[in-house]
Amino acid sequence: MDSISLKKKLSKFDVHWSPKLIGELNGQYVKLAKGVGELVWHAHAEEDEFFLVLAGRLHPHFRDRVTILNPGECCIVPRGVEHKPVAEGEVQVLLFEPKSTRYTGDHDGEQTVAVDDQDWI
Amino acid sequence: MDSISLKKKLSKFDVHWSPKLIGELNGQYVKLAKGVGELVWHAHAEEDEFFLVLAGRLHPHFRDRVTILNPGECCIVPRGVEHKPVAEGEVQVLLFEPKSTRYTGDHDGEQTVAVDDQDWI
Repeated sequence: MDSISLKKKLSKFDVHWSPKLIGELNGQYVKLAKGVGELVWHAHAEEDEFFLVLAGRLHPHFRDRVTILNPGECCIVPRGVEHKPVAEGEVQVLLFEPKSTRYTGDHDGEQTVAVDDQDWI
Repeated sequence: MDSISLKKKLSKFDVHWSPKLIGELNGQYVKLAKGVGELVWHAHAEEDEFFLVLAGRLHPHFRDRVTILNPGECCIVPRGVEHKPVAEGEVQVLLFEPKSTRYTGDHDGEQTVAVDDQDWI
């Protein structure tokens, strides 16, 4: 019920493509993430994902299109849809997704962060 | 999967305390709302609510405290907690809550908007 400042929370980490937890409600997490470059292609079989860009620009790549998200713009990636987040410069993003969501979905690799290893900030 | 501009969506309505739908994921809605003055005291028995202030200032009143939310600040109201949103000037807010959430929770009155009457914009 207290105020959570996105700016203050974003100042607490610098790591890329490793989302941090800032809230939990109705079985969902609210997360913040920073990224630059590319995350791997992946999909989430059971979870839809919401991205809101806070700073920078995110280019979610899909197999049939590339969406461009500027600050104040958001999109929803439905479950099962392959996507690859790309950012030329650093992007800062707010995410809503189920607590069960693994950041790299069905992909296992060095960019994978286990669900239990996501830190609260 | 397309870009949704919060600014463009906010330009599509002027009504206060009547949230509009902009997205749906995992049984939750993403909503935008504008408000000025006070909404009634209410609680949601089964739903937690997330508020992110986009413009203006929101003062969620609780029975034991008042939180102040400036732009870029958010809070989560747990299920069952009585609250009354207050805004001195116009506030613009992003909401994330279950599809079943009634805006005025357990309160029936002239500020109530039925779940099925929430418009997509």
